[in-house]
Amino acid sequence: MDALKELKRELSTIQDLLSAAAVLEWDQSTYMPAGGAPARGRQIALLGRLAHEQRTKPRMGELFAELSSVADADSVDGALVRRAHRHWRRASRVPSALMHEIREHAAKTYIAWASARAADDFAAIRPYLEKNVALSRRYADCFPDAEHVADPFIDEHDPGMTTASVRALFDALRVELVPIADALMNAPPPDQSFLQDASKFPADRQLAFAEYMARALGYDFDRGRQDLTHHPFMIRFAAGDIRITTRIGATPLESLFGTIHETGHALYEQQVDDAFDGGPLGEGTSAGVHESQSRLWENLVGRSRPFWDHFYPELQRTFPEALGEVPVEGFHRAINRVRRSLVRVEADEVTYNLHVMLRFDLETRMLEGELAVADLPDAWNARMESDLGLRPPSNALGCMQDVHWYSTTVGGTFQGYTIGNLMSGQFFAAARRALPGLDAQIGEGEFAPLRGWLAEHVHQHGARYLPAELVERATGAPLSSDDFLAYLRTKYGALYDLAL
Amino acid sequence: MDALKELKRELSTIQDLLSAAAVLEWDQSTYMPAGGAPARGRQIALLGRLAHEQRTKPRMGELFAELSSVADADSVDGALVRRAHRHWRRASRVPSALMHEIREHAAKTYIAWASARAADDFAAIRPYLEKNVALSRRYADCFPDAEHVADPFIDEHDPGMTTASVRALFDALRVELVPIADALMNAPPPDQSFLQDASKFPADRQLAFAEYMARALGYDFDRGRQDLTHHPFMIRFAAGDIRITTRIGATPLESLFGTIHETGHALYEQQVDDAFDGGPLGEGTSAGVHESQSRLWENLVGRSRPFWDHFYPELQRTFPEALGEVPVEGFHRAINRVRRSLVRVEADEVTYNLHVMLRFDLETRMLEGELAVADLPDAWNARMESDLGLRPPSNALGCMQDVHWYSTTVGGTFQGYTIGNLMSGQFFAAARRALPGLDAQIGEGEFAPLRGWLAEHVHQHGARYLPAELVERATGAPLSSDDFLAYLRTKYGALYDLAL
Repeated sequence: MDALKELKRELSTIQDLLSAAAVLEWDQSTYMPAGGAPARGRQIALLGRLAHEQRTKPRMGELFAELSSVADADSVDGALVRRAHRHWRRASRVPSALMHEIREHAAKTYIAWASARAADDFAAIRPYLEKNVALSRRYADCFPDAEHVADPFIDEHDPGMTTASVRALFDALRVELVPIADALMNAPPPDQSFLQDASKFPADRQLAFAEYMARALGYDFDRGRQDLTHHPFMIRFAAGDIRITTRIGATPLESLFGTIHETGHALYEQQVDDAFDGGPLGEGTSAGVHESQSRLWENLVGRSRPFWDHFYPELQRTFPEALGEVPVEGFHRAINRVRRSLVRVEADEVTYNLHVMLRFDLETRMLEGELAVADLPDAWNARMESDLGLRPPSNALGCMQDVHWYSTTVGGTFQGYTIGNLMSGQFFAAARRALPGLDAQIGEGEFAPLRGWLAEHVHQHGARYLPAELVERATGAPLSSDDFLAYLRTKYGALYDLAL
Repeated sequence: MDALKELKRELSTIQDLLSAAAVLEWDQSTYMPAGGAPARGRQIALLGRLAHEQRTKPRMGELFAELSSVADADSVDGALVRRAHRHWRRASRVPSALMHEIREHAAKTYIAWASARAADDFAAIRPYLEKNVALSRRYADCFPDAEHVADPFIDEHDPGMTTASVRALFDALRVELVPIADALMNAPPPDQSFLQDASKFPADRQLAFAEYMARALGYDFDRGRQDLTHHPFMIRFAAGDIRITTRIGATPLESLFGTIHETGHALYEQQVDDAFDGGPLGEGTSAGVHESQSRLWENLVGRSRPFWDHFYPELQRTFPEALGEVPVEGFHRAINRVRRSLVRVEADEVTYNLHVMLRFDLETRMLEGELAVADLPDAWNARMESDLGLRPPSNALGCMQDVHWYSTTVGGTFQGYTIGNLMSGQFFAAARRALPGLDAQIGEGEFAPLRGWLAEHVHQHGARYLPAELVERATGAPLSSDDFLAYLRTKYGALYDLAL
């Protein structure tokens, strides 16, 4: 058989195993009764192990050797072979005994973290995190050609990026962002009191409105659905089955912006070229680019004034008791409140990046051996105080708040959030140049032009291009924080009447 | 490693693959958007193929050889090895090329059947069914020690039973049942008009009542859940995750009795010894015994007068517009209406068995080569006329109504329905002997004693005993139609005021 055909068939089997595991995970988060947990964990692990075995079987190495000339070609097949080869190299480099140890330890750490966080007991989780850092360093050792110990983790989630390139990006961002954030955090906060009475936002109406919005933005419910979970997520099983979830929180903002965010992820996946489905190109290309799509819709579109000029009357009709008397200006200001906060996932779009950079810096120092886990709480709290002006009253609200360090290897999982914000600014600026009527279209609820621009320049390509190449092709410039900062300055300067 | 331990580990992997496939199937029937179908079919097939490969790998044969003395023991481990060995033999005997051809043809046939049935076009499906019969005969040829061509199919679903033993059972039943059915079909039918106005049975209230009933019967929602599907079913993923589905039909009877039926299946699975979970004993032992549990709860309990003495007041409160003025006697008579009908799944508990025996006889003759597929419609219609007194106006309402012959090999899938009815009568008679207060308990909504009897004598054993042995152990006698016929005579004699 032709080697490329054979490779594609093998990759399709890997993808089917991973997709099957994804269905099991979706069910676990949505509908599984409590009693199903032990068997489900075992079944998901089995499918992951089979996918890994399939990926690393000796024949795969031979196929990549046979296909080295295809891999060099600037074609879809070339991109496919290159991406598959990256996956194979990563899977083959790490001995299965170490992977097994990492997975076992991660499962134990997650359970220990859940109770340690509830009890605000950092001492209880400390030995687990210490071992996790040690295992992560051993994992990194499997990639001796990496320049920096964190590079293998960053490369896994944001391929082509390195500790050095992320640092350069973040340093440039930070020097501009800190004064903007300071000015906004010190300004009088807009009123949000009309969002606080949960009884005026019945869950069923929140859900119905969220679904209405997702549909209006272009999410195709014939190839997806929305359900409720504790943490919202988007998940792809196949081109024709890309699902989102949302949640009901203390205010309606959780379901509104949770749904817009996940719809952004889902539009990316739903607009990937169907021909890529079931193979390594049939998905978003990186964590950062994925986050750029969710954040573009959530913030640059979904927190804009034209967006609510269109949707707010219907939102008022849906929640007349709470919003009937609140003008759109007041609502728009409320959903763009910037403030000091302790918790990343509750942070506004300005300060959010300070939370992310803090985590990126601390995890890098832990991986380097420059920061001992025992000193993590103090380092976290000191940085929070200097960056956000708040000292966490507990480690539960400090260095134990995020699941990331306690559920997988340390490293590589945070930078994508801010990379995504920067990209969202750059993509949106490029779309605005191409679509002079963009704001007016959004104000009319016409999202097809923006969706079309994103499909053409970002979505259809799936994982064909590495993030850096995709950004340059789509926007004509390398990734920088310029557009994102300009967006913040313009928007928040006007909203807060400040010169930023 | 100890061979038994190794076998159990291998079997657990098989079970996990099959359970993962089951989750994908459940999702396909409940929540999957239309666009998910193609990839889902491929993924389910892949998991089935991996389970088959795992089951038939050479090491398994060696293990069974090493464990032959364990297999002879009258112990749980002996039963486990015997059942696993049966599965292995069945999987190993059939060449994978033939299995592949059967599966491919079944998939095509199913699609062709759906449109042929909609168009009432038997000619369109005939060549598919002809090939299916031919493939089924080739499948049977793989079991040269079988006495009858249909035996391998019967043995798969009702292990230990044969064409001869089923025929003997059905012949004895038929001679007694036909006059009973005739007498009842000729009697004036009870009034069901108050069930016909769907607007008086809102779907949400039907669902809530169904859930309330399932809970009252003892179904554990911490280890399961109920959802809506086109055809109701019960599905087991693990001891802690055994789900049921129900449906909303033209009358409330579909959801009421659909739920009781599936609850009967689920109680069986939920009460299997937890120690058997994840292995070949951790499930019901046969199609027939499974059906005995669903039918026992649906008919012998759920269509009894004491049952509705307990539940009817709440049903009236739930649907006051329809049932407020209807006394419990009228409702009880209505849900026990016996009549001539064309469609098996809509038939009452008396005539149902005539529908089943018709199918069993015709499929056996097709497998024997005694009945050509071309002659199936005539044979079907003639038998319907003689047994049920009705001639189907179309093949869609005749020999094309059931999916069975058009979705898998022909044979073995119908007899279990009537075997289940016979067993339900025999189990219930034994339970009644052991629990003199049974009717009174049911009338009080106390189902724990009956559930306890079933757990002790049937459920806890899972697949430890073959059906025939289980029946004898539980009831003290070999399976016969006596108790079932006595039940029908007593119940319908009283209801219709006839000497049956």
